[in-house]
Amino acid sequence: MVDIATRVYNHNFKIDPIVRSLIDTDFYKLLMCQSVLRNKPDTIVRFSLINRTTRIPLANLIDEGELREQLDHVRSLSLSRGESTWLRGNTFYGKRQMFSPSFMEWFENLRLPPYELERKGDQYELTFEGKWPEVMLWEIPALAILMELRSRAVLATMGKFELQVLYARAMTRLWEKIESLRQIDGLRIADFGSRRRHSFLWQDWCVQAMIEGLGDAFVGTSNCRIAMRRDIEAIGTNAHELPMVYSALAETDAELAEAPYKVLADWHEEHSGNLRIILPDTYGTQGFLKRAPDWLAGWTGIRIDSGDPAIGAETAIRWWKERGEDPTQKLVIFSDGLDVDKIAELHSQFASRVKVSFGWGTLLTNDFRGFVKDDALAPFSLVCKAVAANGRPTVKLSDNPNKAMGPADQIERYKRIFGVGTQKEMAVIV
Amino acid sequence: MVDIATRVYNHNFKIDPIVRSLIDTDFYKLLMCQSVLRNKPDTIVRFSLINRTTRIPLANLIDEGELREQLDHVRSLSLSRGESTWLRGNTFYGKRQMFSPSFMEWFENLRLPPYELERKGDQYELTFEGKWPEVMLWEIPALAILMELRSRAVLATMGKFELQVLYARAMTRLWEKIESLRQIDGLRIADFGSRRRHSFLWQDWCVQAMIEGLGDAFVGTSNCRIAMRRDIEAIGTNAHELPMVYSALAETDAELAEAPYKVLADWHEEHSGNLRIILPDTYGTQGFLKRAPDWLAGWTGIRIDSGDPAIGAETAIRWWKERGEDPTQKLVIFSDGLDVDKIAELHSQFASRVKVSFGWGTLLTNDFRGFVKDDALAPFSLVCKAVAANGRPTVKLSDNPNKAMGPADQIERYKRIFGVGTQKEMAVIV
Repeated sequence: MVDIATRVYNHNFKIDPIVRSLIDTDFYKLLMCQSVLRNKPDTIVRFSLINRTTRIPLANLIDEGELREQLDHVRSLSLSRGESTWLRGNTFYGKRQMFSPSFMEWFENLRLPPYELERKGDQYELTFEGKWPEVMLWEIPALAILMELRSRAVLATMGKFELQVLYARAMTRLWEKIESLRQIDGLRIADFGSRRRHSFLWQDWCVQAMIEGLGDAFVGTSNCRIAMRRDIEAIGTNAHELPMVYSALAETDAELAEAPYKVLADWHEEHSGNLRIILPDTYGTQGFLKRAPDWLAGWTGIRIDSGDPAIGAETAIRWWKERGEDPTQKLVIFSDGLDVDKIAELHSQFASRVKVSFGWGTLLTNDFRGFVKDDALAPFSLVCKAVAANGRPTVKLSDNPNKAMGPADQIERYKRIFGVGTQKEMAVIV
Repeated sequence: MVDIATRVYNHNFKIDPIVRSLIDTDFYKLLMCQSVLRNKPDTIVRFSLINRTTRIPLANLIDEGELREQLDHVRSLSLSRGESTWLRGNTFYGKRQMFSPSFMEWFENLRLPPYELERKGDQYELTFEGKWPEVMLWEIPALAILMELRSRAVLATMGKFELQVLYARAMTRLWEKIESLRQIDGLRIADFGSRRRHSFLWQDWCVQAMIEGLGDAFVGTSNCRIAMRRDIEAIGTNAHELPMVYSALAETDAELAEAPYKVLADWHEEHSGNLRIILPDTYGTQGFLKRAPDWLAGWTGIRIDSGDPAIGAETAIRWWKERGEDPTQKLVIFSDGLDVDKIAELHSQFASRVKVSFGWGTLLTNDFRGFVKDDALAPFSLVCKAVAANGRPTVKLSDNPNKAMGPADQIERYKRIFGVGTQKEMAVIV
């Protein structure tokens, strides 16, 4: 029986929107947004989308008109009543009213600010400039839209049958990964794959697979919309944009040296428990920890997001011991370029020495490597970063020089101030 | 949008019928049926279903009531107008009106005769006794029903998500097989997998995959309903039941020795070209060919269905040469226990010496090995054979003693008459 009404309705779609909700974003963006709205509401920040995988000519693959339609659609979104109810009524990390009434009121009235889009050669230059708490919410939707439009461009060349086989393969691959992960005793793992997902529906499927296959070992997803839809935990804490913007705003070298700690001092006031997770690598993990105030050693854990993850974890363990803390009571979250083998290796290496958790990103929600000709669906490294604050450029060093961002002279200045020596170059996987 | 009408309609199903059409059967059953209707219309034959894989307790897995409902449903079927039109109007092997008007009239009025079902320990005893042209059409539906009820019994224990992953894996596995087959230059392969398929829908999917993946190398399916539905060739010639019944009817040892040739003489009158395919192994290939009349050497080809296939093909090649025939003009169809590696091996061994074709059966349409606990969806060896004709037992020897059938004294008698010596035992794969 053909449902004629459904068919006709489907034919009426003008576009098939990729991002259909303001909470189709990472939980930590909302946490950070609340913090920024309280502490730096009027800072003017510029976010810019950067394709680090330049061999992928996004502007040739993706039609500019379609890209504009998708971005315009996001600007038409506002928080729905159900979404607001979920954010207001839910328990996050065991805490009720994570989001204050004033933040919720602001969020309910928010529409995302304008974007600037320009084609530059084979790439798009996509930027968002405006008040920090507003423009920061563009990051995840912008990335998800570009990633999915690229997927769609490739999928549009395939037949119905090829598509079925493609997803059968992707499902089989993911399920095999989940079956290996199931062997890891005491595993704790979350989905961190919103930003570079193959598509929304695929991320949603991946999350369901993790729920089904891992049970309690799957602790939640960073994606609020999927957390709401699948009735699971929303996961996340804070990101590099906080120290990057705070640092760019610093008036003196002394202020700059203090900026990353000021970020966490503000965070400390707002959050407790599992939300107190240090992200130490923005300007080099080693120096950051060495100069850190003692109260930071009392935090719950650390997130390792660049460099050799085993070295990062060892550095943290040594640091906790030096500060008189018991590492076995600390949480280490690995979140950089993970796949099953790496997860198993890090788990076996650290599970008896610290509490270990994993934020699995792109190779959870976008592992279509090897499935189509020219590997045209392989994930690639697209980022959307704060590049300026109140007119000053931001800088990120991280523990891998291949992930560094900012003007060369500023990078040198930051390296000097944060005492970053020679760093080991590592390939950026995704 | 939920289509309420469809939901309500689905809820009204009494059963989900496995066999929904009288032409959901192998093409050669219809060819043979026409021949039998002309030559032996009143012979009383008894078909019996035998589970050669006794470790699978079909009677524990499959509810007797459900089995009866499925079998009863088949008895309610008659040829639809569209099916009749397709059989009457289609070209089979390049020939129009393959089925005579008198056969078609008979077929249009056919309902399948009663069955006898009894539980014996862990197995069912399912038999069909009646006029040969009627009971013979039970073979494929009976097998397909038991195979699919067994699949359903296992699938019923699985969650929605597990089911999705199961089929994703099966699709991925089949597609990988097809990709290997695609590498074989000059391949010709057909689907022979109706009788031991995982399910109807799965066989239909497999056929679509073969069409999509192999193009012209996929020459068709033995299943008439799927051939009609997918608008491709229906494939097949003749089977062991003809020599088995003809032989059982023989009054003397001399008549018995001639019976297998009488079958092919009758066939010779009715069919030409690619339908003239010798099935030589019913009572041993070697003796059969040695004693064969010269006109048989003029036939188009041979089907190798038991024993070591390479030895069977070599025997045929030698025989053709002895009879002054050019083997490169002859067709060798392999159809026993095939999978990709065996197909590739046989193709590379024989493609330059004869015309080679493959009838791929169970491991095309039912390769669910290793996918679920206790390998509960692995295919198994279920057959439905003519066991008696006009009250006399039938005998099959084949080129593998593990496939022999019939009373021990009759097997000895047949071995003596057909001069079958020691045979090599081979595991029956499926």
